[in-house]
Amino acid sequence: MSLPSFDTLDALTTLADRLPEADSHAAEAARARQNALTKPPGSLGRLEQIAEFMAAWRGTARPEIWRAQALVFAGNHGICAQGVNPYPQEVTAQMVANFEAGGAAINQLCRANGADLSVIALELGRPTGDFTEGPAMSEADCLDALWQGASAVDEGADIVILGEMGIGNSTIAAALAAACFGGPVAEWVGPGTGSDKAGILHKVEVIERGLKRHGGVMGNAPAILAALGGREQAAICGAVLAARAARIPVILDGFICTAAAAVLYATDKRLLDHCLVGHVSAEPGHRKLLAAIHKRPVLEFDMRLGEGSGAALALGIVRSALACHNGMATFGEAGVSEA
Amino acid sequence: MSLPSFDTLDALTTLADRLPEADSHAAEAARARQNALTKPPGSLGRLEQIAEFMAAWRGTARPEIWRAQALVFAGNHGICAQGVNPYPQEVTAQMVANFEAGGAAINQLCRANGADLSVIALELGRPTGDFTEGPAMSEADCLDALWQGASAVDEGADIVILGEMGIGNSTIAAALAAACFGGPVAEWVGPGTGSDKAGILHKVEVIERGLKRHGGVMGNAPAILAALGGREQAAICGAVLAARAARIPVILDGFICTAAAAVLYATDKRLLDHCLVGHVSAEPGHRKLLAAIHKRPVLEFDMRLGEGSGAALALGIVRSALACHNGMATFGEAGVSEA
Repeated sequence: MSLPSFDTLDALTTLADRLPEADSHAAEAARARQNALTKPPGSLGRLEQIAEFMAAWRGTARPEIWRAQALVFAGNHGICAQGVNPYPQEVTAQMVANFEAGGAAINQLCRANGADLSVIALELGRPTGDFTEGPAMSEADCLDALWQGASAVDEGADIVILGEMGIGNSTIAAALAAACFGGPVAEWVGPGTGSDKAGILHKVEVIERGLKRHGGVMGNAPAILAALGGREQAAICGAVLAARAARIPVILDGFICTAAAAVLYATDKRLLDHCLVGHVSAEPGHRKLLAAIHKRPVLEFDMRLGEGSGAALALGIVRSALACHNGMATFGEAGVSEA
Repeated sequence: MSLPSFDTLDALTTLADRLPEADSHAAEAARARQNALTKPPGSLGRLEQIAEFMAAWRGTARPEIWRAQALVFAGNHGICAQGVNPYPQEVTAQMVANFEAGGAAINQLCRANGADLSVIALELGRPTGDFTEGPAMSEADCLDALWQGASAVDEGADIVILGEMGIGNSTIAAALAAACFGGPVAEWVGPGTGSDKAGILHKVEVIERGLKRHGGVMGNAPAILAALGGREQAAICGAVLAARAARIPVILDGFICTAAAAVLYATDKRLLDHCLVGHVSAEPGHRKLLAAIHKRPVLEFDMRLGEGSGAALALGIVRSALACHNGMATFGEAGVSEA
């Protein structure tokens, strides 16, 4: 793959210097084309911005999506021992089987929006450690999951959409967000797959204990990933980086997916420059997280499922943006008078 | 067609009594299905609501979209004599030619989202009257355009998306909205295809003159349509009604399309029960108009093009909603444990 090799988490702190940046010439050429198309300038709103974003990252004025790859990473979490989720942990593997059988929401959304789905189950039989008692992952475990994520990216893809599945991982996401961006833990915690008020208060208390235990890693985002994260979170980081190395734009999903990628933002904010966020989740911490990483979501649809569902839905919008960008006639071609 | 025949505009005031209503049993069956699918209940957010809406209007728990029909109506407006638009009026016919040649945004968006597009040009060589000097249309002209719109609806369609094209018609839309819903005219007027500040003030002044001239029709929404509207506005009303008669849900587009349909809401609010609004336009009056007709837009994308572009984009979302609704496995089918 194009991603420069590294074997310590600390290497993430200088990685952005070795990764490609947006191609401003391609973006300018795309903007010029948008202004010549048969419509009042700017009247396609955010569809125009998305076309320019795609042009900048694909390095061409007329970017196309031939292959959209959807990657869903699944992991299990030691934190479930603390009773943070109403569903049994077996559901992670059951849902992976459902993905493989084609019965989940993400299967339908990938088909409807033209993405090829791959599901990567990350050692479901060996959950990470309970972060209230020790680190969730060793550095080696964390790096291993990160490289599994990176190697899942098909460098022939034109866009990658990312999602996750893992019972208990809304607690992981809130812990990562609180550790990376600070503020009251309660502002990062929500119902997840269905915690009630008491369940939410319990999640807050569990995370507060975890943050206290791992006080030593605060300020060091890659170390936070190992201490409080999970395998699917590390894999998402790896996939984001491998896509960047190959100049492939990424669509992140909801709170949990974004919280994983936000570890990269907290490491070096340039690392998410090639990422869109597909939607803002109903999970309350997501809006705060998007503000922290300065991203405007493509959609606002009150969804809170994960699996990459919001990212897959947003892929359809990106396809429409490029359909207009590439298929419309210019004023000159169509013989339409300008203002 | 299924729409009961009528030959006066006044007949609109009692028409809702003769049109089908939502099927609450189908909606309940769709809701029960959503709650059995492999996801936390409610976690697909507005996608679930859209699936239920489609079920209610198609009268089946498992609605599908085999045929999506897009109708774009084009008209010319006598009000252009008042200098309300920076583009020459010939652009309406030029854009119709562009639609027919496949070069406009709506062509690409229909292809990307699976809609069959028909463009209906309504006597472009004979603009309506200048409403500052007299009625825009006679009752006969208005009814004729309305029935052209109604007869354009294919009763074999599963969903109809509506759009418009007509140089000067953002002024028509603002005049209709101000007449139907009141409030300061300036709050209904925006830049349209590209008026500057002075142009906007001029549009306000023109509309205020029109409202004064037609004071006699205030409170009578169907008469407002003839006095201040245009042929594409009347055709949109006809298409909305014909779709309703055939239990076909409708996706309205932006400010101009919504303002046309809003005449029906002002006549009898039940007449828009089967309509979604595809997006909220950047044209400032649209948000106020959506509040007046109590509709939440599907998308918010800063678009302001018309042509049905926002409705076509929203069609992709509706397709995704039904893909999940029909294609997902239930907890029982997939062998996934519940909470």
